[in-house]
Amino acid sequence: MTYCVGILLNEGLVMASDSRTNAGVDRVSTFRKMFRFRVDGERVMCLVTAGNLSITQAMVSKLVEDNKNAEAPNLLNAANMFEAAQRVGDAMRAIYDREGAYLKKHNVTFTSSFILGGQIKGEAPRLFRIYEAGNFIEAGDDTTYFQIGETKYGKPILDRVVGPETPLTEAAKCALISFDSTMRSNISVGPPIDFFCYRTDSLTAAFHQRLDEDDPYLAEIRHGWGEGLKAAFNGLRAPDWKF
Amino acid sequence: MTYCVGILLNEGLVMASDSRTNAGVDRVSTFRKMFRFRVDGERVMCLVTAGNLSITQAMVSKLVEDNKNAEAPNLLNAANMFEAAQRVGDAMRAIYDREGAYLKKHNVTFTSSFILGGQIKGEAPRLFRIYEAGNFIEAGDDTTYFQIGETKYGKPILDRVVGPETPLTEAAKCALISFDSTMRSNISVGPPIDFFCYRTDSLTAAFHQRLDEDDPYLAEIRHGWGEGLKAAFNGLRAPDWKF
Repeated sequence: MTYCVGILLNEGLVMASDSRTNAGVDRVSTFRKMFRFRVDGERVMCLVTAGNLSITQAMVSKLVEDNKNAEAPNLLNAANMFEAAQRVGDAMRAIYDREGAYLKKHNVTFTSSFILGGQIKGEAPRLFRIYEAGNFIEAGDDTTYFQIGETKYGKPILDRVVGPETPLTEAAKCALISFDSTMRSNISVGPPIDFFCYRTDSLTAAFHQRLDEDDPYLAEIRHGWGEGLKAAFNGLRAPDWKF
Repeated sequence: MTYCVGILLNEGLVMASDSRTNAGVDRVSTFRKMFRFRVDGERVMCLVTAGNLSITQAMVSKLVEDNKNAEAPNLLNAANMFEAAQRVGDAMRAIYDREGAYLKKHNVTFTSSFILGGQIKGEAPRLFRIYEAGNFIEAGDDTTYFQIGETKYGKPILDRVVGPETPLTEAAKCALISFDSTMRSNISVGPPIDFFCYRTDSLTAAFHQRLDEDDPYLAEIRHGWGEGLKAAFNGLRAPDWKF
């Protein structure tokens, strides 16, 4: 399984992905699911992926190859983030055209989903959730985050805490708690966790951090969140029902 | 959708069910999903149901009818809780034999699942998770609770708080928080919430409480838990990443 999240804030973007893959519980591996693209001073993008690894890797390879050809449409010459999302969708469709029928013959479902975030000079940062059909939706003030993969365990804390005004580092903390909840309940989601934090209009740097199993900040969040939940639980009175 | 939970404790049993059903978002209704059976001084049982309402209602109706015939095997003359779970499974199979083929012709999936808890004099309280095929598993010291329906949102708090030693009223509080998390994230799970609390060896009384939308204790838990989570979140430091 996989868990990825992307959050759009006034201050910028926070994106995160786990890196565990499994084909059955006896075939568990580590693969990167976060990919970054940038042209300093002009554009910064981050793509996180979920679904069949052969499909998502093929698609990312296609995007990387396309970027080498400056004459053809690619992520590095897209006029804006909407066009960039379309190009991810187009790459998805190209992979489907090549692979879809063969996978179907072997009853392999063509599953893949993506979150694309980034900023191109001249517009604000934008965030998209791209489906396997190549269509996509965009985050706005009402819905400021997207999740893909194992989304349910980590959703409640995002719903309670994150909004457009949330500071970048607070959103990163919230994303990590969301990962902790997911990893506790689904062993097929696991570290290392890749983090991408981007400050609006910086355009030159995209902060990347990889948190391993034994990362001290991850340990601090795990322990502190567990203690905090227990305190919240103990702070509520039990019902006074008599039986 | 549905959410039900059953918790087995040294002190007894806590079970709870929501009462919202939906066939599409424009056909939302309220139906009871909790059913209790008892013979004072001898046995107390509680059954909660999830799945296709026509199937689960048919099965409960069959159990109720069977209970009227003291000569035939039923829940009121089962020798122990294992046998009672078998009888629920048998009723399930009878419904499948009658309905299964017809539902299949209309592409209706035969979905249903149950949690059965209770105590029969001579043994300790027991808790079973019964599947649509009529087979079942039993809770023990390592896994003290079962959930059916929309299980994911409400699972983390159960995992963190509940064990065999948990007092009855604390487990009831935990179950209600689990419901609150589920109802916040899935609008097809909703009140009234039925609660069944049973104290080991009482055998004569089974406490039942129905919490409506505007129940003061439900409101207290909702508000208090939200505040507690925010406090837990604010109590953790943000990462010191520089970007």
